[in-house]
Amino acid sequence: MSRFRLFSRARVLARCLSSDVAWRLGRLNHVAIAVPDLEKASALYRDVLGADVSQSVALPDHGVYTVFVNLGNTKIELLHPLGENSPISAFLKKKPSGGMHHICLEVDNINKAIESLKTHDIKPIDAQPKIGAHGKLVVFLHPKDCGGVLVELEEA
Amino acid sequence: MSRFRLFSRARVLARCLSSDVAWRLGRLNHVAIAVPDLEKASALYRDVLGADVSQSVALPDHGVYTVFVNLGNTKIELLHPLGENSPISAFLKKKPSGGMHHICLEVDNINKAIESLKTHDIKPIDAQPKIGAHGKLVVFLHPKDCGGVLVELEEA
Repeated sequence: MSRFRLFSRARVLARCLSSDVAWRLGRLNHVAIAVPDLEKASALYRDVLGADVSQSVALPDHGVYTVFVNLGNTKIELLHPLGENSPISAFLKKKPSGGMHHICLEVDNINKAIESLKTHDIKPIDAQPKIGAHGKLVVFLHPKDCGGVLVELEEA
Repeated sequence: MSRFRLFSRARVLARCLSSDVAWRLGRLNHVAIAVPDLEKASALYRDVLGADVSQSVALPDHGVYTVFVNLGNTKIELLHPLGENSPISAFLKKKPSGGMHHICLEVDNINKAIESLKTHDIKPIDAQPKIGAHGKLVVFLHPKDCGGVLVELEEA
């Protein structure tokens, strides 16, 4: 094992042993892309790139239609506005051709993750986690706290 | 198996049997994030989120410093400008806090993928693939052809 990897593991061990860490970061659940035309975007991934693409599912609580592109190790989530107050509408006004919207990271305990992140001045956008696309608790962290990236946490 | 999955598999089979398909899409190799401060971004993923984070590597041919965040199933690539003509400098001028830059999809044969994509009017930005961060051939596809998303293909 290289000196770097030993050092890196020592850091992770030190973090695990510290009193405020009672949660673990997991895998990249998905990367989300906002699209102005859901059928056209689905066709790009399905018919041109040959990926396994789901049907569209409406999530009224989040103001989106979602389509998942299964890439084997993780997924791309295609997002299209649903309803008048969809957060995707504002995004598409700025980027009419669509674009990368957020990344979703899995955590094993979302409430403990939120508590821990607050001690680093990283606050969730909504006060409480909501049920997300997979029927699991999710919460969004503001891009200004996460290097310009909207980060969704999902309890896996 | 649901009717949808049967239909989806039939599509993939039809695509495989068509004469122009001699390549396969693979996994999401990484999602890339441009960052104005590489050490600060590394610290967020390493010390706050507890991920396994690599040291910085310079890639002068691509005009970037890269750091990889290993998430188990895939990676986040943090990108920082290297040199005066770095493509990341222009990106950070528009988004000074940083942001999501591209996704990288694996393919089993990059030249056959490029040939096939050209028949769908999706053209690579550079005429020929270059050697990328993992010592493998990579090519970038223009966002205007890919629903607003800069897509890197890597021969895995």
